[in-house]
Amino acid sequence: MALVTHGNSEFDRDTAVTRRAPGVYDAHLSAGWTIIQAVNGGYLLALMGRALGDALPHPDPLSVTAHYLTASVPGPAVIRTDVVRTGRTMSTGTASLIQFAEDGSEIERLRVLAAYGDLGTLSDDVRTTAKPPAIPPYEHCLGANDAPGGTTIPGSTAITERLDLRLDPETAGWAVGAPSGKGEMRAWFGLADGREPDPLSLLLTVDALPPTAFEMGLLGWVPTVELTAHIRHRPAPGPLRVAITTRNLAGGFLEEDAEVWDSEDRLVAQSRQLARAVLQG
Amino acid sequence: MALVTHGNSEFDRDTAVTRRAPGVYDAHLSAGWTIIQAVNGGYLLALMGRALGDALPHPDPLSVTAHYLTASVPGPAVIRTDVVRTGRTMSTGTASLIQFAEDGSEIERLRVLAAYGDLGTLSDDVRTTAKPPAIPPYEHCLGANDAPGGTTIPGSTAITERLDLRLDPETAGWAVGAPSGKGEMRAWFGLADGREPDPLSLLLTVDALPPTAFEMGLLGWVPTVELTAHIRHRPAPGPLRVAITTRNLAGGFLEEDAEVWDSEDRLVAQSRQLARAVLQG
Repeated sequence: MALVTHGNSEFDRDTAVTRRAPGVYDAHLSAGWTIIQAVNGGYLLALMGRALGDALPHPDPLSVTAHYLTASVPGPAVIRTDVVRTGRTMSTGTASLIQFAEDGSEIERLRVLAAYGDLGTLSDDVRTTAKPPAIPPYEHCLGANDAPGGTTIPGSTAITERLDLRLDPETAGWAVGAPSGKGEMRAWFGLADGREPDPLSLLLTVDALPPTAFEMGLLGWVPTVELTAHIRHRPAPGPLRVAITTRNLAGGFLEEDAEVWDSEDRLVAQSRQLARAVLQG
Repeated sequence: MALVTHGNSEFDRDTAVTRRAPGVYDAHLSAGWTIIQAVNGGYLLALMGRALGDALPHPDPLSVTAHYLTASVPGPAVIRTDVVRTGRTMSTGTASLIQFAEDGSEIERLRVLAAYGDLGTLSDDVRTTAKPPAIPPYEHCLGANDAPGGTTIPGSTAITERLDLRLDPETAGWAVGAPSGKGEMRAWFGLADGREPDPLSLLLTVDALPPTAFEMGLLGWVPTVELTAHIRHRPAPGPLRVAITTRNLAGGFLEEDAEVWDSEDRLVAQSRQLARAVLQG
């Protein structure tokens, strides 16, 4: 048995997995990363990323796709990985997150398909036309304690204690009942205990902001069907900026496109998820 | 054995698969959908989509992710599918595309993870802010025969005979040695034999335009690592408009974001791929 983790932060502790057999890992879904009663999808993605980083010969996630099959619950879980292909610069694998019903039967929560590589070996060539999001300075943005009632997310929200999330006031109107109507969400992002970002924690970052649907004036639940994250560069230390955009809400589905920028103005991650809009009223 | 196909178009004929056993399909990769010597990735995606549409209880691809593992070659292939989960409104499955080496050993070409549903049952609610691409009328755009030398793509290009592709002159400068330098490609898209679009053919459409890298002034090969397509609506009959954008070329990788709009101004598909930039000079 080998414990696969790095450092002693809350994030590293709660995404730790223990290798039980080749490709099979024991995990514990922490109640500390829940929104109301749901385990955050980005946290689950990082947990799966941790297991795949151990199972595959390359260290860094390049492209990670997760299908969210059933709602995870805090408690024990097993991750089963499978190596699809191993190349010189890249490897590909799958992972399944399994929990157990009271009668002991297996319930699959997530299925992941991912390509790993080594971000440290990439060329320094950058010809980007993307621009960092226009977001006010950190101190002008709104934290969980700035909202009426002490939280920016309705209901119980253990995850807000683990994140240092500061929303752009222009995209925080929903928290005071005045959504902008636009499908945009922007925030400064850090881990509350100061743990610096790395490729694994970016998998959490891409799915850690409140849903754009809130700012579109829609109340309800926005469960992720599928999320794909591309990690494009190892993030520099310091706070991240995250911008999420929804352009097409139609037929009960919407996409959320996320960009994550590091303190050196590098686009370090891009993601897109397809979510169902289960709306009230 | 059951032949799984629809209609008699080139597209339907060349994406036909034959069920050999539950979840296992024989296929033939047609040389008619190659660019230079590579089999087009969108054609392969549609072929996999055909098999999954038979293996899963729901008819339409909602979200399809493919990892391109090794280069496919025209000729026989086998598709193995596996059902991950079956729900009331959605089902999830995987598919592998296999070809065989001279010694008979298996080589996996593609691994796919996909969610299927029924686009016909979605609500009519549309709250989109996305706008169709600004593209000149069809008759002002450039077909394969309008380029010097008779083709807009260097090298042999069987696929151009199967597509009715008309490039926006603003994004066709690369074909005459004068690329715009922008990571944009826009075109009218149809199948040359007039076969109307459907959710399956959209899987071809999202990866059928010349790479944005050409218009960025980069010569070379842009192999797809991973592509995820979201099919958002059944397309109306008539020509499609496709807009592809690259914002971040960095570290030898680039993303291509595609949007497909139908003749009724509906955003019918979105896709993003991560590709390697294997550049010359």
